[in-house]
Amino acid sequence: MIIVMKQDATEADVDGVVQYILQEGLRPQLSRGDERNVVAVLGSPAPELKDAMGVLPGVLEIVRISRPYKLASRELKQTDTVITIGDVKIGGDNPPVVMAGPCSVESEKQLIDTARAVKASGAHILRGGAFKPRSSPYSFRGLGLEGLKYLASARDETGLPVITEVLTVKDVDVVYKYADILQIGTRNMQNFILLDDVGKLDKPVMLKRGLSGTIEEWLLAAEYILAQGNSQVIMCERGIRTFETYTRNTLDISAIPAIKKLSHLPVVSDPSHGTGKWYLVAPMVLASVAAGAHGIMVEVHPAPDHAKSDGAQSLTFENFAFLMEQINALSGAVAGIKRPVPAAS
Amino acid sequence: MIIVMKQDATEADVDGVVQYILQEGLRPQLSRGDERNVVAVLGSPAPELKDAMGVLPGVLEIVRISRPYKLASRELKQTDTVITIGDVKIGGDNPPVVMAGPCSVESEKQLIDTARAVKASGAHILRGGAFKPRSSPYSFRGLGLEGLKYLASARDETGLPVITEVLTVKDVDVVYKYADILQIGTRNMQNFILLDDVGKLDKPVMLKRGLSGTIEEWLLAAEYILAQGNSQVIMCERGIRTFETYTRNTLDISAIPAIKKLSHLPVVSDPSHGTGKWYLVAPMVLASVAAGAHGIMVEVHPAPDHAKSDGAQSLTFENFAFLMEQINALSGAVAGIKRPVPAAS
Amino acid sequence: MIIVMKQDATEADVDGVVQYILQEGLRPQLSRGDERNVVAVLGSPAPELKDAMGVLPGVLEIVRISRPYKLASRELKQTDTVITIGDVKIGGDNPPVVMAGPCSVESEKQLIDTARAVKASGAHILRGGAFKPRSSPYSFRGLGLEGLKYLASARDETGLPVITEVLTVKDVDVVYKYADILQIGTRNMQNFILLDDVGKLDKPVMLKRGLSGTIEEWLLAAEYILAQGNSQVIMCERGIRTFETYTRNTLDISAIPAIKKLSHLPVVSDPSHGTGKWYLVAPMVLASVAAGAHGIMVEVHPAPDHAKSDGAQSLTFENFAFLMEQINALSGAVAGIKRPVPAAS
Amino acid sequence: MIIVMKQDATEADVDGVVQYILQEGLRPQLSRGDERNVVAVLGSPAPELKDAMGVLPGVLEIVRISRPYKLASRELKQTDTVITIGDVKIGGDNPPVVMAGPCSVESEKQLIDTARAVKASGAHILRGGAFKPRSSPYSFRGLGLEGLKYLASARDETGLPVITEVLTVKDVDVVYKYADILQIGTRNMQNFILLDDVGKLDKPVMLKRGLSGTIEEWLLAAEYILAQGNSQVIMCERGIRTFETYTRNTLDISAIPAIKKLSHLPVVSDPSHGTGKWYLVAPMVLASVAAGAHGIMVEVHPAPDHAKSDGAQSLTFENFAFLMEQINALSGAVAGIKRPVPAAS
Repeated sequence: MIIVMKQDATEADVDGVVQYILQEGLRPQLSRGDERNVVAVLGSPAPELKDAMGVLPGVLEIVRISRPYKLASRELKQTDTVITIGDVKIGGDNPPVVMAGPCSVESEKQLIDTARAVKASGAHILRGGAFKPRSSPYSFRGLGLEGLKYLASARDETGLPVITEVLTVKDVDVVYKYADILQIGTRNMQNFILLDDVGKLDKPVMLKRGLSGTIEEWLLAAEYILAQGNSQVIMCERGIRTFETYTRNTLDISAIPAIKKLSHLPVVSDPSHGTGKWYLVAPMVLASVAAGAHGIMVEVHPAPDHAKSDGAQSLTFENFAFLMEQINALSGAVAGIKRPVPAAS
Repeated sequence: MIIVMKQDATEADVDGVVQYILQEGLRPQLSRGDERNVVAVLGSPAPELKDAMGVLPGVLEIVRISRPYKLASRELKQTDTVITIGDVKIGGDNPPVVMAGPCSVESEKQLIDTARAVKASGAHILRGGAFKPRSSPYSFRGLGLEGLKYLASARDETGLPVITEVLTVKDVDVVYKYADILQIGTRNMQNFILLDDVGKLDKPVMLKRGLSGTIEEWLLAAEYILAQGNSQVIMCERGIRTFETYTRNTLDISAIPAIKKLSHLPVVSDPSHGTGKWYLVAPMVLASVAAGAHGIMVEVHPAPDHAKSDGAQSLTFENFAFLMEQINALSGAVAGIKRPVPAAS
Repeated sequence: MIIVMKQDATEADVDGVVQYILQEGLRPQLSRGDERNVVAVLGSPAPELKDAMGVLPGVLEIVRISRPYKLASRELKQTDTVITIGDVKIGGDNPPVVMAGPCSVESEKQLIDTARAVKASGAHILRGGAFKPRSSPYSFRGLGLEGLKYLASARDETGLPVITEVLTVKDVDVVYKYADILQIGTRNMQNFILLDDVGKLDKPVMLKRGLSGTIEEWLLAAEYILAQGNSQVIMCERGIRTFETYTRNTLDISAIPAIKKLSHLPVVSDPSHGTGKWYLVAPMVLASVAAGAHGIMVEVHPAPDHAKSDGAQSLTFENFAFLMEQINALSGAVAGIKRPVPAAS
Repeated sequence: MIIVMKQDATEADVDGVVQYILQEGLRPQLSRGDERNVVAVLGSPAPELKDAMGVLPGVLEIVRISRPYKLASRELKQTDTVITIGDVKIGGDNPPVVMAGPCSVESEKQLIDTARAVKASGAHILRGGAFKPRSSPYSFRGLGLEGLKYLASARDETGLPVITEVLTVKDVDVVYKYADILQIGTRNMQNFILLDDVGKLDKPVMLKRGLSGTIEEWLLAAEYILAQGNSQVIMCERGIRTFETYTRNTLDISAIPAIKKLSHLPVVSDPSHGTGKWYLVAPMVLASVAAGAHGIMVEVHPAPDHAKSDGAQSLTFENFAFLMEQINALSGAVAGIKRPVPAAS
């Protein structure tokens, strides 16, 4: 931590800062500049000191110099984390994993039909929402337990592992029972109690980036899960909220190489939510693969014009089949031009 | 709902839209324009149709024309909702209510000292966090139940009603037991299960605006609570996330008159979180009062330079006392120049 | 400037940084921390070094510790700048100055009628656009020179000084000839050549904050003008672009006390552009006054429902007259509760 | 245009709207809904009516249904615009064009060395700034005319066409004389006078998206150039301003397929400015190519650790050479999996 002093800070102000640091059991080191003085804090300052010391007389600002996340950082663990679900491997140099399926589980038939179709096209994991977060209380909120059971049937039928969202601590047990991967949705990225709870599980958790989550906050949210002992965390970029309204969100593809630089965790991209428009999904899937995504999540529906949610961003079976061909062609090319990951920072 | 057709949409496309609307039991009305055709949907279309119909051939875009929230809207209820907690009234033409106290309850002494000080200066409600949402798992997360008990003691001691945050459905019962107002924090604005739960209570709920919550989404979140039967909802603007980094968030003061225009619910402002800097708190409190806020929430701490959270944005007792004088002077002037609320829209 | 090294930076990396600093004629000071090392750069590093040194081996990040603006800063000049235009004084402890008038000058009659009306209600300065920046090339772009002449007539008629926008370096001379204050619009905040040019004038310049301008960039834009010798710069907050769409922009009222803290320049608020909705203008004007604005800019039109631009955010004469009463009542109260400006930082 | 009436609008209000429309020479068509009435405006309403009619009694909101840009739209021109500069073709199905070179022209040797290096690696166009927009007046602002001459020498030497920025109308003639493509920078996207001026030239113009420019505003800016008769406009996505600070901007790759959907103009991506970090440039270049970009702009410098601007985001010659191999491999694969552009909307 670096304490930057105001230009007109007095010697007494500087001394006050130095004494404060000593009282906290830390070591101050003063640098006298031409324009202003700075005091480096050596040792491990408690996180709250940044805020608290900011109000001391003569202090202009406080600059943190360590990364606040530890377990999630590549500085701590240099090798890529690879997560295994049955035959599927996510992370490292493995080819991108494709998770596909409807936004909401609407009926057994809808789900099974979709599961068969995406399996036939080459998807690796089945997605489908049983508990749905909806902006309006008057929208369809999912089939709940019934939806989970349909997912289990679809897995039995096709062999595809399933991923589904858990919305609340009350449902962690039941979702754990049916799902192969538990998804934490964008609105729950900082639902810290829920993160604590899934951190105690022995199944993988996919953590979506919050609508306004910075990369640092997102890694700190992963840190919550890791700190409870669950090391199987998959990061999922799904678009952030910006001023642009043509797209539903702005898919931040640079988050993919950024996470790979800062962390050892696998990172997946969700262009369906990232764009909100079906005709933008395919190019953004390909862009994500080219940027190095470890996986892709795509919404697919038998009849998007009758979907109970997210119809506008869902692919038909036919469009999905064509997309899979594109992904396969592209990921082959990408694998051929890969470079060693640059050194950690 | 209005369906806007593409310029090159065919007659068959238009007919497809018309038939779709009829099959849904709704009434289509076609307007043929010079440049393109539009189809108005009369009746009450289900929310998912906006997305689903967007993928029909020839459709350019779908425009919603009704407001998605009902119970929260001033169109439904024209008179201001006033919420009563003991002697305190929030909403309508009542003078602004001041909620003050520490960010976190840190100890019994810290809380009681602060409660006495803010009471002496004229605050109406005591705030204090027992369960704290923190970006990092390594930060102080609050005293929990112990903190709730201290809040109850401080209420007994000073007569001030208390407001405190509930983070998770698991804690709703215990927070309900000790608090006079339950606060839903910014990160939980769209924690819909938690909204459902506090919607079943018979105590007031203060709903903070999400970091990236639009005014419409925020009112829809209030709608969740209202739809469960709890009509005592207080809206709280606490700053939104923007590109500006000098302030912790950007306090959107225009949300105060906007909510008063769109809704009958009371609206409160929290400049401590809205700015993150103690020296910006007083001007932003005064700005909020001038803009018509029904209340103010302010963080106060006996020693901000040793606070366990939010030290940089906490006022000392002395600064708070001076601020109360300013609020009182200003709110008198504001009352004298009030104008009838403009007609609902 | 502080160079933060990676955890795994080698001694050779640290030495490379130290040598680089020495070669630039600056003085390095190394602090060895438990977790990582940092090197403070003493002296006055050139601005480009921040970027350039970021690519040296072993460097994690570079933190700037001096403020990049000098002439605009309160550290350099502690007393408030007061700008005088005829009888009008903007800045310091003077009561808020009100600038009012139509968005666009549409005709001589429209302008004179408006000038008389706002004068009668107590406005101090007449605003009106002769050269209009418009998002679409098909919108009304202003009357140009003819509009400037009408502004001059209105000044002769009413005695009100006039403020009007200059869009391009080609028009600086002609606008200088007719205007009392030249306005740099939000889209030109970083039109550096234009800033250079108005920096050479001996008339005041009002610099609107850019749609996505940070407070620091805005002060740097003012620095361009100041650096050319023109010390009469008025800052104008007019709303920033955020994700919220209910309002046209988000008026960042906290920028008012922030500018007063960081700079000696006067700061004005424009709630018409800040909100885009006439019924939000009055509360946001009052909020700006309460927050300490040195002035207010408001759009007024004889018939907003027939305005050639910005009708939705323009006040009628009657609404403006009432607003002036409110401003006067409020600014009296605000003056009575003023506190000394907190020490510079 | 659609006028949405308030629920409590009276018959007189509705009639007022209808009469207003008739007086403007347009045709109203009323749809009576269960919840509220709407009035469609048939004909071609002037742009200012949207704002002006919003203040009529009983009006809730106005919804525009036509696209405000015409010449830039794919509805008007269905076939892709291809721009030819010497042997280079940008747009349509041509392989992506690579523009590379230093941020600023710093010296003749620096530029020639870079030009030779990027040419040897396969770049098609040389970039380099002679007039530099800089946030601070104390930063290096470019060599000006001297820089333009070095660009011309480098073109003579290598055969590469050159692209360089024009900052102001004063420099349009001189930049036109030396450049093959004139670049309008992000801060000038809405410098409408400058757009008018380059719209009168017979050389291609590359229009960077503004920091906070929506896709619609960006296309309207292109419309300014097109409306003056210059049909050779290249769109360039270079990152937008969001809350994320890890990257310098957020590169909105979805803008690439969005522009291709909405417009016939070619679209290029600039990951150097989009990310601000050299190690994110390569993955974002590849992502842009996979998303269908017609071109790529990349900053390359002989010694990024001594660059006078943008050192942190510049590639070394060696890194650029490797990137060119990756681009070539990828664009082959992308060409093989292309699909017909979806129908215009």
